[in-house]
Amino acid sequence: MRPNIYLFGDSITEESFSNGGWGATLAHHFSRAVDVVLRGYSGYNTRWALMVLEKVFPPETDCGSGRAPLAVTVFFGANDACLPDRCSAFQHVPLDEYQQNLRSIVSFLKKRWPKTLVVLITPPPIDEDERLQYPFVENTLGLPERTNEAAGAYAKACVAVAGEFEIPVVNLWTKMQDYPKWQKSILRDGLHLSKGGNRIVFDEVIKTLRAKDMSLETLPFDLPLIMDIDPSDPLKAFQN
Amino acid sequence: MRPNIYLFGDSITEESFSNGGWGATLAHHFSRAVDVVLRGYSGYNTRWALMVLEKVFPPETDCGSGRAPLAVTVFFGANDACLPDRCSAFQHVPLDEYQQNLRSIVSFLKKRWPKTLVVLITPPPIDEDERLQYPFVENTLGLPERTNEAAGAYAKACVAVAGEFEIPVVNLWTKMQDYPKWQKSILRDGLHLSKGGNRIVFDEVIKTLRAKDMSLETLPFDLPLIMDIDPSDPLKAFQN
Repeated sequence: MRPNIYLFGDSITEESFSNGGWGATLAHHFSRAVDVVLRGYSGYNTRWALMVLEKVFPPETDCGSGRAPLAVTVFFGANDACLPDRCSAFQHVPLDEYQQNLRSIVSFLKKRWPKTLVVLITPPPIDEDERLQYPFVENTLGLPERTNEAAGAYAKACVAVAGEFEIPVVNLWTKMQDYPKWQKSILRDGLHLSKGGNRIVFDEVIKTLRAKDMSLETLPFDLPLIMDIDPSDPLKAFQN
Repeated sequence: MRPNIYLFGDSITEESFSNGGWGATLAHHFSRAVDVVLRGYSGYNTRWALMVLEKVFPPETDCGSGRAPLAVTVFFGANDACLPDRCSAFQHVPLDEYQQNLRSIVSFLKKRWPKTLVVLITPPPIDEDERLQYPFVENTLGLPERTNEAAGAYAKACVAVAGEFEIPVVNLWTKMQDYPKWQKSILRDGLHLSKGGNRIVFDEVIKTLRAKDMSLETLPFDLPLIMDIDPSDPLKAFQN
């Protein structure tokens, strides 16, 4: 049986199987070695994520699911970082609680599956100008519901949690701002990812997995590959 | 727990999670309702597929897998239809055997999971000129390893099997040739699918599932949707 990699997060995870998305690219990359399981929930913050953990990750005793996954990406913070006095305030989670919620999510996963690699991903940077064009709810204030500065504080808190647990973290907030014109080249609406942004997440996740010996070079393939099938005796490959 | 849809087939299935691929698009479409499970095996014909069925579809008693899927797409024939006297002869399966193998695959699935919808997909049409540019093995004859006529015969055999079992079939061979300049617009190397070709498979599979009441309108969503969360009392949505 192939191992699973779960992608757990908000809309940036939920939409990761759209055209050129990082989740689909991951599934394609591992097409013969790993099942990539999509568990993205648009709009969710860590407070809500915490409430659904048991349903998202069923226990091992539940036959039909519950096998220890190879890895889980935990990608929250973009919604927690909505400002408490702006139009998406209902999604806001205070910084301290966000950090505590992340700890609870990691602890839950580590307790359920001690050998599973948990990878944290920070929220991406925010382009405030663009956010004004794409409010999720009516924006009567005329001010962006998210700021890049707030996203940065949540990213820093996420990195700190990874440090406490000694687990890997992809610091998208920092990394993405290294790209020229990241506001438009990496993001498509000031928050969600363009194709270029999706590529960065894919590359970073692959790199993180590889550093933990999870790559196409180390993971077993599912059933004989066509290049390993002898044209003069094809059935031989299927005999064990 | 979300239901699964398995995609079982050859390279046209294996690569279906690449950029804009029909598998990824299906996973994106059902991102909150269904897990789309990739079981594509490049180069495989029905003879080889038959030898690996038990490994691809583990029995229900195997905890951690084996739940009855909602649906399985069975998409073979492009390799079976390689001509027996051309450069990819080792993949060839005679027409009668192909048809019998398809019957065996469908019987296996129906026996294992009587309620699962099995959807057959015929091989696509072939652009012979283009195939000469993309031989899988050295082509000393200078003749295409596949012809459109042969692919058509296998497609017809596939449609007949669907009729016998009274299960749906997507006749790609016929449907794709309705498109203008299908040779270049639908295919990318005379065999595998372009973005346009991937779109056709996605549309046809969705349509087939919908006809069997498997759509976003009928399948339950996994956990509360953001639009169903009351901004004035978000946690209410998570209380049952």
